Amino acid sequence: MKFRVEQSDKVSKARAGELKTPHGRVKTPIFMPVGTQGTVKTLTPLELRENGVQIILGNTYHLYLRPGDLLIAQSGGLHNFMQWSGPILTDSGGFQVFSLSDLRKIDPDGVRFQSHLDGSHHKFTPQKVIDIQRNLGSDIMMVLDECTPHPCSYEYAANSTQLTIDWARQAREYWQDNNDVHGHQQALFAIVQGSVYNDLREKSVLALIDLDFPGYAIGGLAVGEPAGKRNTITGFCTDFLPFDKPRYLMGVGTPQDILDAVERGVDMFDCVIPTRNARNGTVFTTEGKLVIKAGQFKDDQQPLDAECTCYACKTFSRAYIRHLFNANEILGLRLATVHNIHFYMWLVGEAYNRIKSGEFLMWKEELVGKWQQTGERKQETGIRI
Amino acid sequence: MKFRVEQSDKVSKARAGELKTPHGRVKTPIFMPVGTQGTVKTLTPLELRENGVQIILGNTYHLYLRPGDLLIAQSGGLHNFMQWSGPILTDSGGFQVFSLSDLRKIDPDGVRFQSHLDGSHHKFTPQKVIDIQRNLGSDIMMVLDECTPHPCSYEYAANSTQLTIDWARQAREYWQDNNDVHGHQQALFAIVQGSVYNDLREKSVLALIDLDFPGYAIGGLAVGEPAGKRNTITGFCTDFLPFDKPRYLMGVGTPQDILDAVERGVDMFDCVIPTRNARNGTVFTTEGKLVIKAGQFKDDQQPLDAECTCYACKTFSRAYIRHLFNANEILGLRLATVHNIHFYMWLVGEAYNRIKSGEFLMWKEELVGKWQQTGERKQETGIRI
Repeated sequence: MKFRVEQSDKVSKARAGELKTPHGRVKTPIFMPVGTQGTVKTLTPLELRENGVQIILGNTYHLYLRPGDLLIAQSGGLHNFMQWSGPILTDSGGFQVFSLSDLRKIDPDGVRFQSHLDGSHHKFTPQKVIDIQRNLGSDIMMVLDECTPHPCSYEYAANSTQLTIDWARQAREYWQDNNDVHGHQQALFAIVQGSVYNDLREKSVLALIDLDFPGYAIGGLAVGEPAGKRNTITGFCTDFLPFDKPRYLMGVGTPQDILDAVERGVDMFDCVIPTRNARNGTVFTTEGKLVIKAGQFKDDQQPLDAECTCYACKTFSRAYIRHLFNANEILGLRLATVHNIHFYMWLVGEAYNRIKSGEFLMWKEELVGKWQQTGERKQETGIRI
Repeated sequence: MKFRVEQSDKVSKARAGELKTPHGRVKTPIFMPVGTQGTVKTLTPLELRENGVQIILGNTYHLYLRPGDLLIAQSGGLHNFMQWSGPILTDSGGFQVFSLSDLRKIDPDGVRFQSHLDGSHHKFTPQKVIDIQRNLGSDIMMVLDECTPHPCSYEYAANSTQLTIDWARQAREYWQDNNDVHGHQQALFAIVQGSVYNDLREKSVLALIDLDFPGYAIGGLAVGEPAGKRNTITGFCTDFLPFDKPRYLMGVGTPQDILDAVERGVDMFDCVIPTRNARNGTVFTTEGKLVIKAGQFKDDQQPLDAECTCYACKTFSRAYIRHLFNANEILGLRLATVHNIHFYMWLVGEAYNRIKSGEFLMWKEELVGKWQQTGERKQETGIRI
């Protein structure tokens, strides 16, 4: 994997860059739609392409439990199984162990848990999650970490941060000593932890930099902390992270959250918000959010977003899409998802363009100002599943 | 609307023909996917086209209640509302009044009922359902009828058949005295009733022929009667129906049901089986049915149907589609629906070709023989919603 910063913004820390993976190039800043169970919910791989998606995320925890990483390996890896030919990043599964599974218990060498599906017993170690991600064949693998909750005591965070560093060291060694399964190289990213404590974040970043990973994620955010706190910590971490390596803010977020983090030097994002909110009938537009079920759209013949060129906006009226939601029709979920993914890809693509042309902050302020006027402030914080 | 029989089969009553509507030509025999609430469930209009759909069915009862025929009229009619530019047939809503609504009561002039959605009170008359279908702007409208249940006493069927004839007369007069709303002509089909009683069926057909409609449907079947009985009544009716008018068997059916009726001279079909069964994970293939969730497909790398050219079969393995169903992913419902609709359109298209080339019965027997070997006999009878 290769990463190159093409252009740095002069008035902020924003960067426009390119990530080269075995399955193609990705322009950064980039948003990665979440394909939890081997599909970005409601969409085909063709629709992902048509809407500008360059790289998707797969959830190791879910795929390991169902259909199983061995079955996916037998199917030629996740790319072949789901017929997505572009790059894939897989998480380590650690986040879902902590958020979804039952009876999880952390040992120094890994974490034991029971499946949320059938109660079966499993253990993830730094090595085991590499093995699983080898079977999946993702372009970018993530190390096993503990994502601390919010709020989190200093003592707990300190111990956890050290654990995540130890696991990262083991993961890196195991990654270097083991080969790929599917004939292409797989990069490994480390994850900075440390909760809301600057000294722990600094310790975490420095230790991980010392291990020299191909890329670095900022974890432990988008877990309920205020946006201001998240921005401060993000900026604190990117001040330390190496300039020439990609930076990935895990689980973020709303359109404004993403722009706030781009401004602070983050390159990569993933979040369920565009897809999950779409299925709840909330669509993002250049003018702000729409709750499409609202009565005001009953006979509205306009598209969701007059400036949007997605299939939903080119073809259907708000009145029709509102009807689909009120009638519980799956096509409604599809159209809102197509639109939101198109919007998110437009957002990061435009961020790239504006960084290149030196207008990033001006453009961002204008866009965010419009959203705040239309109530965008009220929208929820990034949520991971 | 114009209809022309292009070719009659020499050894059966099957016919290949063409129906000319204000929104395009339709080759018959034809299957009309059901778009109950302004969408063929899970699919876009583009996908309907891509999979060979020529005409769809809309449900007047559902669209009248939600979003309302006036709203659809304001949106430029059902074609414009749902962005389907091909022909549309709408039913009269009568069937759903009898199967879905509460507290229905038949008067000589129509039927009163309460909405299954909110309990609100409504009345459908032969005239009212024409008004609604004028607002929807379908290419083919259906008269209000009473679809008798199975089993049904002779006395009940006799009275009901007379009622349906009376309503058809009123509908025809009203249709001729009133204009379209959306600038294109709308045909009106009558519906033959009479339950399982030959003399009532004969009386019904002769009375309706006397009124001279542009097309004739056979109703009151696919309501639980044995397939043999359905075939007998269908053949009895088509013996009386005019050769030069299209014949539509309402609510039928499975692939074999359709071929049985084509053999007996039926031209048009609608049924929820391909779409509903798809969402339950049952797919139709040239070799018979597959229940895709079955364990035998766990690591099956073949497509659903090796002979099929639909997007699902060209792209994905049975193992992947099975996983989608097991993981409750909407993409699974979509792919199975795409496949089943493609299969049904292949089936009627091939019936047309084989009638034209004089091989219909031979082809049918071979195909049905294959299905029966693989358990096709066990599949359920046609169901309407």
